Amino acid sequence: MKAARYYDRGDIRVEDVPEPVVEAGTVGIDVAYCGICGTDLHEYLDGPIFVPPHGHPHPISGEDAPVTLGHEMSGVVYAVGEGVTDLAVGDHVVVEPYIIADDVDTSPANPAYHLSKDMNFIGLAGRGGGLAEKIVVKRRWVHPVGQDVPLDEAALIEPLSVGYHAYQRSGAKAGDVALITGAGPIGLLTTAVLKAEGISVVISEPSELRRRKALETGVAAHVLDPREVDVVAEVRALTDGRGPDVAFECTSVQPALDTLFDAVKPTGVIVVVSIWGHPGSLDMQKLVLKEVDLRGTIAYVNSHPETIRLVQEGKVDLKPFITGKIGLDHLVDEGFDTLIHHNETAVKILVDPRL
Amino acid sequence: MKAARYYDRGDIRVEDVPEPVVEAGTVGIDVAYCGICGTDLHEYLDGPIFVPPHGHPHPISGEDAPVTLGHEMSGVVYAVGEGVTDLAVGDHVVVEPYIIADDVDTSPANPAYHLSKDMNFIGLAGRGGGLAEKIVVKRRWVHPVGQDVPLDEAALIEPLSVGYHAYQRSGAKAGDVALITGAGPIGLLTTAVLKAEGISVVISEPSELRRRKALETGVAAHVLDPREVDVVAEVRALTDGRGPDVAFECTSVQPALDTLFDAVKPTGVIVVVSIWGHPGSLDMQKLVLKEVDLRGTIAYVNSHPETIRLVQEGKVDLKPFITGKIGLDHLVDEGFDTLIHHNETAVKILVDPRL
Repeated sequence: MKAARYYDRGDIRVEDVPEPVVEAGTVGIDVAYCGICGTDLHEYLDGPIFVPPHGHPHPISGEDAPVTLGHEMSGVVYAVGEGVTDLAVGDHVVVEPYIIADDVDTSPANPAYHLSKDMNFIGLAGRGGGLAEKIVVKRRWVHPVGQDVPLDEAALIEPLSVGYHAYQRSGAKAGDVALITGAGPIGLLTTAVLKAEGISVVISEPSELRRRKALETGVAAHVLDPREVDVVAEVRALTDGRGPDVAFECTSVQPALDTLFDAVKPTGVIVVVSIWGHPGSLDMQKLVLKEVDLRGTIAYVNSHPETIRLVQEGKVDLKPFITGKIGLDHLVDEGFDTLIHHNETAVKILVDPRL
Repeated sequence: MKAARYYDRGDIRVEDVPEPVVEAGTVGIDVAYCGICGTDLHEYLDGPIFVPPHGHPHPISGEDAPVTLGHEMSGVVYAVGEGVTDLAVGDHVVVEPYIIADDVDTSPANPAYHLSKDMNFIGLAGRGGGLAEKIVVKRRWVHPVGQDVPLDEAALIEPLSVGYHAYQRSGAKAGDVALITGAGPIGLLTTAVLKAEGISVVISEPSELRRRKALETGVAAHVLDPREVDVVAEVRALTDGRGPDVAFECTSVQPALDTLFDAVKPTGVIVVVSIWGHPGSLDMQKLVLKEVDLRGTIAYVNSHPETIRLVQEGKVDLKPFITGKIGLDHLVDEGFDTLIHHNETAVKILVDPRL
């Protein structure tokens, strides 16, 4: 079968690989769509980061580069292994793409399985990937979505789960106002979750095209250009002088973090969603004198069922975030290159491995 | 009556002032003891900070320097104003020393009255102070302690409330392990609260005398010298490799914050209790990839009743933290100077205005 394999920085090859084998406790999935994630781009431009370099196998998967890429996938079950009784051939599913050590409790009772030692991702550190025709995944990580969610939209459930977990970390509740810095894919999908949960979202984003997208998709209540307006004053005016209840940092730039500290109400919560490559500078007096909570969030944990429910119930419409569909052979020239050079208009590009 | 009045940096005078008048809704208190706080020292050495300078009256109290100092007081009710029916002459009381605007809801329903606009403290921004023979305080801010808590120990309930609120902010629960950087007065009193609540405390503190105090008072389970041992490795060994559940930063120095980020378990909480005079540097990747919560805490809010209960039930013994008692006339030479020059052995010095 065809698969996109990551060899090294700048070296991704679409080639023929053996089909994976459906063993006991696993599920064979015909991939329908797989999204390209910022993490994939990062591996391509600056990696290997999550990918175990050739000669350095990952301690859990035992695999090293080349590995099949892709972790934002939807598909249809074509086979189930021995012992899998609650999924059947033909079911539509998505994957929660974790590689986690066997001795970790990955039941819903553990709210931190995603932070366990050597955790990594299917499609980055081995165990196949969604940028291929088929994948075999342990039952634990396969989530049915029902027949009513279109498979292209279902491929966005993985990044939507990132937004859902960020929402959970914030403790935001219906009626709250949120301020988000950055309207990239994760900023937008976090906004979509918040709106679905009854939270009004103000986005600060310097790109006009991205601001427009945030309004067109119907998820943001207000958008602000931080180069043109005083974001702190504007958001205060929108909240009767109080300031937003919660905030989400989705840019990894210092001025955004500073704005959120100034804007958030006393006892407010700031969730850092973006991955910073450099230390942040923190006004500790503001942290203390406003009693701010600054919270990190990474990926998702027990988040897929609730995220899927939001989509099934129509509370989140994922269609407007799909800005392109391409074939596997054009992963680099039509996928990565578009995201690198036109990242203000492209939100989520889906790869269809049957094309 | 005698009162210690703050005029300006380095200029505190003990002088005769008129006795305060007990008006409707207020309580007249004969001060028994008043502790000297690090904030008082800060005003003396680097102020005015909280004190409104002469010519710049505080927007709520309407007062400016000179003001009477002292906000950690215990005393005995000598008169109650009209409408005060739930306190009587002879009652032993402590003061929650807030100056808060009249239009703020200061009921227990408001978990953030202490963060309201222009909030300041009795004994810093006017309305009398505990470093005087008498004080008159609005009923809302007077808390009875019963006749069984010695009045000298009661004077430590105010700083103990700071520790109690920090504990509340942490979300720590019985059975947890806490790591605290810094065994100054607030570090020690926070430790006392945590121990009372069933949390085992490890303290990292470079001063041998302070480490000894932390053990002598019986509040710390373990003490570590960060100049001699690897605090992260030691505390991990004490927690089966997991790392502490919660941590409290009580030093305002960068290496302490770095240690707490390295040490705390994934999903752990770090509470910043100290007031930093400079920005902090934050490893944002650790915040995100460990899903740490960094939380500021300041003073107390609705914390006095629970704090008093801990002392009444004998769960916190405040006696070991009293390291000196002096008269008002010796506030500077025996009080401030001792705390400045012997701050490793002095924890809490009480002023008895009757001496």
